[in-house]
Amino acid sequence: MSEPKLLRVLAGETAERPPVWFMRQAGRSLPEYLELRARAKDFMDLCFNPEMAAEVTLQPMRRFPMDAAIVFADILVIPHALGQTVWFEPGEGPRLGDLPPIGALQDAIEGSTARLSAIGETLARVRAELEPDRALIGFAGAPWTVATYMLEGRGSQREAARTYAYEHPEALDALLDVLVESTARYLVMQAKAGAQALQLFESWAESLAEDVFERIVVGPHRRIVEQVRAAGVDVPFIGFPRGCGALVENYAAAVPVQAVGLDTQASAASGRRIQAGGKAIQGALDNLLLRAGGPALDARVDALLEQWSGGPYIFNLGHGVIPDTPIEHIARVVERVTGKPANRMAAA
Amino acid sequence: MSEPKLLRVLAGETAERPPVWFMRQAGRSLPEYLELRARAKDFMDLCFNPEMAAEVTLQPMRRFPMDAAIVFADILVIPHALGQTVWFEPGEGPRLGDLPPIGALQDAIEGSTARLSAIGETLARVRAELEPDRALIGFAGAPWTVATYMLEGRGSQREAARTYAYEHPEALDALLDVLVESTARYLVMQAKAGAQALQLFESWAESLAEDVFERIVVGPHRRIVEQVRAAGVDVPFIGFPRGCGALVENYAAAVPVQAVGLDTQASAASGRRIQAGGKAIQGALDNLLLRAGGPALDARVDALLEQWSGGPYIFNLGHGVIPDTPIEHIARVVERVTGKPANRMAAA
Repeated sequence: MSEPKLLRVLAGETAERPPVWFMRQAGRSLPEYLELRARAKDFMDLCFNPEMAAEVTLQPMRRFPMDAAIVFADILVIPHALGQTVWFEPGEGPRLGDLPPIGALQDAIEGSTARLSAIGETLARVRAELEPDRALIGFAGAPWTVATYMLEGRGSQREAARTYAYEHPEALDALLDVLVESTARYLVMQAKAGAQALQLFESWAESLAEDVFERIVVGPHRRIVEQVRAAGVDVPFIGFPRGCGALVENYAAAVPVQAVGLDTQASAASGRRIQAGGKAIQGALDNLLLRAGGPALDARVDALLEQWSGGPYIFNLGHGVIPDTPIEHIARVVERVTGKPANRMAAA
Repeated sequence: MSEPKLLRVLAGETAERPPVWFMRQAGRSLPEYLELRARAKDFMDLCFNPEMAAEVTLQPMRRFPMDAAIVFADILVIPHALGQTVWFEPGEGPRLGDLPPIGALQDAIEGSTARLSAIGETLARVRAELEPDRALIGFAGAPWTVATYMLEGRGSQREAARTYAYEHPEALDALLDVLVESTARYLVMQAKAGAQALQLFESWAESLAEDVFERIVVGPHRRIVEQVRAAGVDVPFIGFPRGCGALVENYAAAVPVQAVGLDTQASAASGRRIQAGGKAIQGALDNLLLRAGGPALDARVDALLEQWSGGPYIFNLGHGVIPDTPIEHIARVVERVTGKPANRMAAA
């Protein structure tokens, strides 16, 4: 049995062709997902139903020759596990109830992993069904990104959260500490349940000043990796500090992840410097171009392969798949990277 | 009479302390501005009234020991001059009427500078009043940023404009050509009217893939500078590709500006590399921190001065002053940089 290509690249190998998977490859754009989604009570119910979540995780694997599956879950399962109410307002996105007092959050850490056992069960189910040469990725939202939701109750208040970082640094640090601890435990559980790689999604690393970025992104990421390692778990990490611009090189130098996720505006040179520094890189096709398609899409895929395939590289998007992305565009890109056609009968 | 410090730094000098000015220093946060603003019919009326616009430009110069004034105008005067209706919806921001056909826009280039003569008059009035050791900056919105407004009719549809860049590259290039030509002429006029430096504001350089960034940001900026030079105008340029992340180093290498504006998330190392490459840098205090104030503000000002004062550096924000920023915070930062207190009686 050959080792999954993704894991070889995460171990520092330069593959004959890069492994490929797409952020948000499960859900959203697939008709078989939408059908299943309609049967779930709500989005969080779907995340906590191992049978359905495993099915959603596997759907894109049947359809496309992706090299890795990523467990279907949400970054907001952590606040849920810490006792803050989370629900999804149809057409608007996530909403969170009042932030519990810090003491209550600290007390909730101990029991939080047990409240997330359903995601472990999803991972075990997927690992049992997935071919051995395809990797299974677990993930968590990174502390700062999750904190912005917890503080503001929704996802669109990033300036308010950045202001909070300046005006209430001690309170923010205490909240980040809770998130580091609970996230590390959650990721250890995921690895034990079958995740072979772990991605930290810092969706909102954008617009942070360098000193703030070091304090609220780099520090917490490093501590999570260290705590997972201290628990005896050595699965590789992919850190994705989306939108952090030139600071991605600070991140790569300071956080002991095995791969750094690059976003849409990554520079070729910056990515190569990270590879030269001993880390794999992952990214960075524009999800708007994937949706738009056409000759520009083919040309850009070729350019990305050309610029980064000389070192350890995982082909991915710079952000998640957009819901109305044509499936044929996904199939076309994955075939261009892997040489393998999509399975047109997958949904039948 | 000593040459304005800003111009010395733009000529490549490392000043004994950096010159300072703030983007959006005129207007918004100043009570004397709000009073004057209330007397104008609307925002565009204010931009095209040289007497009032000159007064607004000078207000922060009376209050704070800024090293440079920037003419009070708006980036959307260019579409206005090209025949597209522009108005400001109170509390919502700019709105634009239907985009004229490309042929009409091309035909409008010739007369566009004449339609902007009021801004030249504002510059002449300001230059006549401003002390000789303080510089006067002219500016224009950069073509891609202005195009996003022209295409979408407002300022919040950036994903739609990015998609347009993929789906209609020839149409976008034709529009950018019109904007390069009209913007170059507008800047030549500003220099002749008294502007001693010219800033190109690319407010929305964020989230662009590297190849797209080269095509729609780097190329048009370079052509504008070259056309202004070809017209015999040699005033220095500051290019500000806000939000472009690591691509700022591509920009610095390829665009013949004298200074590169860095945004809030600039990395110290990246800025130093640009200085080492022979350009001045400008930036990059977080405008949210300026508003928040406190010891963190002082510490960050000191850190910015420390990290970049070894080369040609202009102290500024990473983005514009936020309207509800306390004036005392602005005064405090400017005094910290210049050693000079604000004039507390300025508004009287």
